Amino acid sequence: MPEFRRDPIGGYWTIISTERSRRPVEFHAQGPTEERECPFCEGREAETTQEVFAIRPGGAATNTPGWEVRAIVSKMPILPEGAATEAYGQGIYDIMDGIGKHEIIIESPKHCHDLDEMDPAAVEKVVQAYIHRINAFEKDPSFKYALLFKNHGLTSGSVRDVIRHSRSQLIGLPVIPKRVKEELALAKSYFERRERCVFCDVLKQETKETLRIVAENEFFLAFCPFASRAPFEMWIMPKWHQADFGRLDEDKIRPFAELLRECLIRLRDVLDDPAYNFILHTAPFRHMAKAVYWKTINEDYHWYLQISPRLTKNAGFEWGTGVHINPTPPEDAAQLLREAQV
Amino acid sequence: MPEFRRDPIGGYWTIISTERSRRPVEFHAQGPTEERECPFCEGREAETTQEVFAIRPGGAATNTPGWEVRAIVSKMPILPEGAATEAYGQGIYDIMDGIGKHEIIIESPKHCHDLDEMDPAAVEKVVQAYIHRINAFEKDPSFKYALLFKNHGLTSGSVRDVIRHSRSQLIGLPVIPKRVKEELALAKSYFERRERCVFCDVLKQETKETLRIVAENEFFLAFCPFASRAPFEMWIMPKWHQADFGRLDEDKIRPFAELLRECLIRLRDVLDDPAYNFILHTAPFRHMAKAVYWKTINEDYHWYLQISPRLTKNAGFEWGTGVHINPTPPEDAAQLLREAQV
Repeated sequence: MPEFRRDPIGGYWTIISTERSRRPVEFHAQGPTEERECPFCEGREAETTQEVFAIRPGGAATNTPGWEVRAIVSKMPILPEGAATEAYGQGIYDIMDGIGKHEIIIESPKHCHDLDEMDPAAVEKVVQAYIHRINAFEKDPSFKYALLFKNHGLTSGSVRDVIRHSRSQLIGLPVIPKRVKEELALAKSYFERRERCVFCDVLKQETKETLRIVAENEFFLAFCPFASRAPFEMWIMPKWHQADFGRLDEDKIRPFAELLRECLIRLRDVLDDPAYNFILHTAPFRHMAKAVYWKTINEDYHWYLQISPRLTKNAGFEWGTGVHINPTPPEDAAQLLREAQV
Repeated sequence: MPEFRRDPIGGYWTIISTERSRRPVEFHAQGPTEERECPFCEGREAETTQEVFAIRPGGAATNTPGWEVRAIVSKMPILPEGAATEAYGQGIYDIMDGIGKHEIIIESPKHCHDLDEMDPAAVEKVVQAYIHRINAFEKDPSFKYALLFKNHGLTSGSVRDVIRHSRSQLIGLPVIPKRVKEELALAKSYFERRERCVFCDVLKQETKETLRIVAENEFFLAFCPFASRAPFEMWIMPKWHQADFGRLDEDKIRPFAELLRECLIRLRDVLDDPAYNFILHTAPFRHMAKAVYWKTINEDYHWYLQISPRLTKNAGFEWGTGVHINPTPPEDAAQLLREAQV
C-alpha cells in the first residue's frame, strides 16, 4: 500500500510507493511503448478492469458494447481502495495509509484522441459522467475531496499517452490537498474583507476589460487568467455563483460541454494539438458540515475548470521560488485563441 | 520589462514576459540547437556578457583568460536590472515591475559538464564564488532574497543544456518568494511550540535511523529526505545550526564542496548522468532587521542544499493537489546511492 508522508520542513505530503520500488534502470526505459490494440475501444470491455459506471442508451449489460461513456477502476491506481488505519507519527515525521479511489472515465467508444474530435452531444454525455462520478464519490464518507483531471499528450505527464484514446481521471482523496486548502483560505479571507466572492469579481473585471476573453456563452466565460502560469492557459468559469461542480443544473451541462469543446478546438488550432492538463477546481465534500470552516463555502467559493498547455518546462527557478515564468502574455494568447478557426 | 502579476484566487505571483511575446510556432522549435563553440570556455571571454566576478590566482585582467571560476550577467535574464517603480493595483489585480538581477556562475575554465568531473580543490573555489556572489547581492537593499540554483541536463528545464559547460545561476529578487515564506513560517511555528530547530530535529532523527543517509563528513550530512518528492532526491545539511549559507566559515567550505562533489558522483554512478536541479535553501536578506518577523530567524531557520533528479513528470494529479508521487522510497534510493562507486 502506498504511504502518505509529510515533510516537517516544507509541510507537504508526498505519496511514496512502497509496494514495488522503481529501480534506476526503469527510469531510462520510460519512452512510449507501442500498444497494438486500444483497450479502451468498444468491443474490448472484457479486457479492462471492473466497470463502475456507463451510459448505455440501449440498456446493454455491464462490460459489453453499447455504451457512450464508461468509467472503470484504474489498472494502476495512484491510491488504491482499502480500509485505512489512523495516521501516526514516526519520531517527528507523519505517516498515513495511501488509500483512496482512482477511476478512468473513457470518453468515447470510438478511438478518438480528445474531446474536440467529438460532437457536442457526445461531450455533453462526458460531462454528465463527470458529475455522476463526483457525486458518487461524495457519498463515501472516507473521501474529503475528489480531483477530476485530464492528462493529454506525452509532456502532460501521461504515462500511457500512446493509447491516444480520450479519457479523464477521477481520484478520491482522504485529505483535502494543500493546493485546494490554499485556494479555499484565500477565497474565504477575500469574502470576509469585502463581502464579495473573489471569483465573481474576476468575472466582472474580465467582462469589462474583454482583452483576455477567449469565448463565452450565456452561462460560461472562457478566458486566459491575468497571472497565467502557463502560456495559453484558459479558465472556464460559470457566470453565476456556484461552489460545487457536482451541483451543476441539467440545463447548464450542454452549454458547459459546448464551451469546453470549443476551447479545446481553439487550442488545437493555435498550437497544433499541444499536450495539456485540465484540472477541475471545485469545493471539497462537506460531510463535516458543522465545522465552522465550511459555513461560508457556498458563498465564498466558486468552481472553475483550468486548462494548462504544457509548452514550457519548470526549472530550478520555478521549483525554488514557486514563481512561474510565462513567455506569452495572456492578452496575446487570448487574441490568438479568439481568432482561431472553429 | 517583465511584469510580476499576482493571481487574486491562487495568491501566487507569475513573471509575465511583456517585452517580446513568444508565439505558438516558437514552442515547437524548442529542441536543442547545436552551438559550434562553447562561449563559457577559457579564451572566449570577449564573447560573453559583462564579467562581474572571477577568481584569478595570477591576477590577470577582467575578461581575459587565467580564471578558475567566473560570474557573468545573464544574456537572457529572467529578471533584468533596473529601477523599479512601486507595485500597483489594476482593479482587483496586483502588478509589480519584474526587476532583479541574474548572474551565471561558470564553474570551470575547462569544458566539463558538471562538478563531479572536477577535483575537490576546484569545487571548493566554486563554493567560494557562490558565497561571494550571494554576499554581494545582500549589499543591494533592493533585493530581499537571492536564489542559487543549477539546471543540469535537458529535462531539468535548462534551455541551453546543449552548451554542456558546468554552471549555476543566481537570481536576486525584490520579494521573498512564496515557497521560501512557507518554509520560514513552518520553521518559526515549530520553534515556537518546541524551542527547537526543526532542521536540527531532522538531523537527529536521520542520524539515529541511518537508513536514509547517503554520505557524511565531520560537518555535513547528505540524506534522502523522508517525504522525498523526487526519486533519489538528496539534501546536504550542515550538522551545526546556521541560518545563512553566506555566513559559512572558511574552514567549512572545503568539507561542503567535497560532500557536494561526492553526492553528484554517486548520483551519476547510480542513474547514469540524470538531469537534476539543485536549489539552495537559505535565509532571506535581513535589511529590515527591526521587523518582528526576522527576530527569531537565526535560531529557527537552517540552510540546506536540495538536489532533485528529474526522472518523473508531473501531471494533472500533482498540479491539482500539490502532492507529488514518488515511485522510489527514499530508503531504497539512499541504499543504492551509498553503495555506489566513488
